[in-house]
Amino acid sequence: MKTLFSKRICGQSINLTQYIHDKAKAFKFNDLIDFAIGFPCENINKNLREGAIRALKSNKTIYSPTAGIPELRKIIVKNRLRYNKKDNALITAGVSEAVFLVIASLVNPGDEVIIISPSYFIFQNCVNFCGGKSVFVPLKISGNKFYLDIKEIKKKITDKTKLIVFNSPHNPTGWVADKKTIEELSKIADCRGITILSDEIYKNYIYNRKFYSPEEFTKNVIVVDGISKSFSATGLRIGWIVAEKNVIEKILPLHQLILFCAPTPFQYAAHDLFKNNYKASLKKHIDQYKLKRNLVFNLLSKISEVEVIKPEGTFYMFLRLKNYKNSIEFSEKLLLSKHIVVVPGLDYGKEWGSFIRIAYREPKNKIKEACLRFKEFVS
Amino acid sequence: MKTLFSKRICGQSINLTQYIHDKAKAFKFNDLIDFAIGFPCENINKNLREGAIRALKSNKTIYSPTAGIPELRKIIVKNRLRYNKKDNALITAGVSEAVFLVIASLVNPGDEVIIISPSYFIFQNCVNFCGGKSVFVPLKISGNKFYLDIKEIKKKITDKTKLIVFNSPHNPTGWVADKKTIEELSKIADCRGITILSDEIYKNYIYNRKFYSPEEFTKNVIVVDGISKSFSATGLRIGWIVAEKNVIEKILPLHQLILFCAPTPFQYAAHDLFKNNYKASLKKHIDQYKLKRNLVFNLLSKISEVEVIKPEGTFYMFLRLKNYKNSIEFSEKLLLSKHIVVVPGLDYGKEWGSFIRIAYREPKNKIKEACLRFKEFVS
Repeated sequence: MKTLFSKRICGQSINLTQYIHDKAKAFKFNDLIDFAIGFPCENINKNLREGAIRALKSNKTIYSPTAGIPELRKIIVKNRLRYNKKDNALITAGVSEAVFLVIASLVNPGDEVIIISPSYFIFQNCVNFCGGKSVFVPLKISGNKFYLDIKEIKKKITDKTKLIVFNSPHNPTGWVADKKTIEELSKIADCRGITILSDEIYKNYIYNRKFYSPEEFTKNVIVVDGISKSFSATGLRIGWIVAEKNVIEKILPLHQLILFCAPTPFQYAAHDLFKNNYKASLKKHIDQYKLKRNLVFNLLSKISEVEVIKPEGTFYMFLRLKNYKNSIEFSEKLLLSKHIVVVPGLDYGKEWGSFIRIAYREPKNKIKEACLRFKEFVS
Repeated sequence: MKTLFSKRICGQSINLTQYIHDKAKAFKFNDLIDFAIGFPCENINKNLREGAIRALKSNKTIYSPTAGIPELRKIIVKNRLRYNKKDNALITAGVSEAVFLVIASLVNPGDEVIIISPSYFIFQNCVNFCGGKSVFVPLKISGNKFYLDIKEIKKKITDKTKLIVFNSPHNPTGWVADKKTIEELSKIADCRGITILSDEIYKNYIYNRKFYSPEEFTKNVIVVDGISKSFSATGLRIGWIVAEKNVIEKILPLHQLILFCAPTPFQYAAHDLFKNNYKASLKKHIDQYKLKRNLVFNLLSKISEVEVIKPEGTFYMFLRLKNYKNSIEFSEKLLLSKHIVVVPGLDYGKEWGSFIRIAYREPKNKIKEACLRFKEFVS
């Protein structure tokens, strides 16, 4: 008897975030607070929305060139240090597609991919899809800070290591890599001929820190980014890959095969957004998230049953539950008892069973209310 | 020295259609006539466009459920014979993604996929990506008609055959399979436990014939379709997979991995379109293409240097050049000399070197002009 499905999709499953949300939906609690979901609660950036409407009204609705509309390719790399030409950019249907294209284009069966853990589930699922092996390097905690121990990376490198997945500001911890760490990582990439996949989707969500990309220190890097998180536009599916021209050219046919092109009207909308002054409204948006970060940190750090590390970026916080080992069970009970959704840490790697991720995305009064209920639950 | 790129993308390349268009663009002829491009020349369906604008104005711009918004899943299967429940449908970012998901979810390395030739390049490229083997069954020509010889399919089936790629109305020939052919094909699928991938994207472009889906005769079928061609919306990237519930569930995690979800505002737009009376305007659109089909057939069948078969569906015609074996060279010369773009038949399989595909999409006066220039060139 033949099996219907291919081996490469066996073992692929919907992630825990989806699972806990489905569960939350089923209960239909009136006073539910979503402390889990991975995008800002604000409406889409107004200029982006207006740009999309303009594109539709002008009937910009047919296939774009496979690599994306030239003006968007150009503008997204305009101020980059190394990869600043149109041919360094490929427009994708969101960062998800970008990550998939990069991993599928580089990883052969048996190749090893170093992933800094805790990590967003799609990285290792892409590696699985390709028959590669994910090698996890957990972040360490010291002095109430997350940090990456470069020695641990070096220990895990073998002749089969093809790729290092890097994400700073980091989902789910809010960790931001410092310059020295990125320099050292880039040196490793250069010396060992390993490529860094740098997921920079949270680069605007950064508090009192400077953002560095590995691109500043090495050419062995492929950057992925998009408009989803910074402009509240997760449903528009616009992202991009930035890399050496020959890398873009090699990835292009696979993008053509899977997508043909990213949604055309939203490419024009993104170009419109970046062409005009978007930085002031973005700063205002990020300033709000800094206040939310401070609020949630201050409230939760008063609870002795959890260990809280102040996030330096993103809109996530990764908490350690001092009295729980099974964060799935914890999350389910928290949902049932206090109507709060959080993501179990296990979604980010098996070492993180006693952690949960919260997303501080809701308005401040809701954050306060959620922290209150959370305190009642764990105390 | 490690190679940067994975084996699975080596050999993937941009298709000839893209190549000839890039060439056409470079020359910047003022009087260029595009007889090649694979979508209607009309602007996007007005109701679809208005629906998209409404969705944007209502800020329906965040992630949708991975499988798509429930109301769209429901409405696209509403009148189907077998798969008519919401859970039978998965919304994708266009038919390209749908085809990729189906092939990647079914085909293991070494598996064989029967593809009816001439065929759209993405089918075999997807099979290559998966390490499968494409086994081509060419359509035959008899009595000035294309037809599929079911005996040829039977001959090519082995224990490794996993999938038969079927596409009626057919790109690039305009062939429409008759009921008996589809019944016989379905019987093969049932007897041998083979799945039919039925690409139904051209089902509305059908002239004096009735459309049959293999779904009517077998449950071993996965259907892909979308809004691109019938509503002039190739840039919106909305397609779908229709299949048994357990197949949809198995494919879902891969869709989540690659896309997370299809563009949300356009899912709402598609639902709006189907909810209201779209059939009258669609009929008007198709009636226009029937007239164009008749015009192009009448004009080209008068040219003795080509063999013309009247298309029964799609907006394509697949011509045999009696005096040319190399359709790439022919297409390049035709472009340079007469400023007409056509697609070389080689893009659809190596047996089709003396064929070209034309798309009768332009307004009638342009079709007339193109046929005139074409006649001058071949005579």
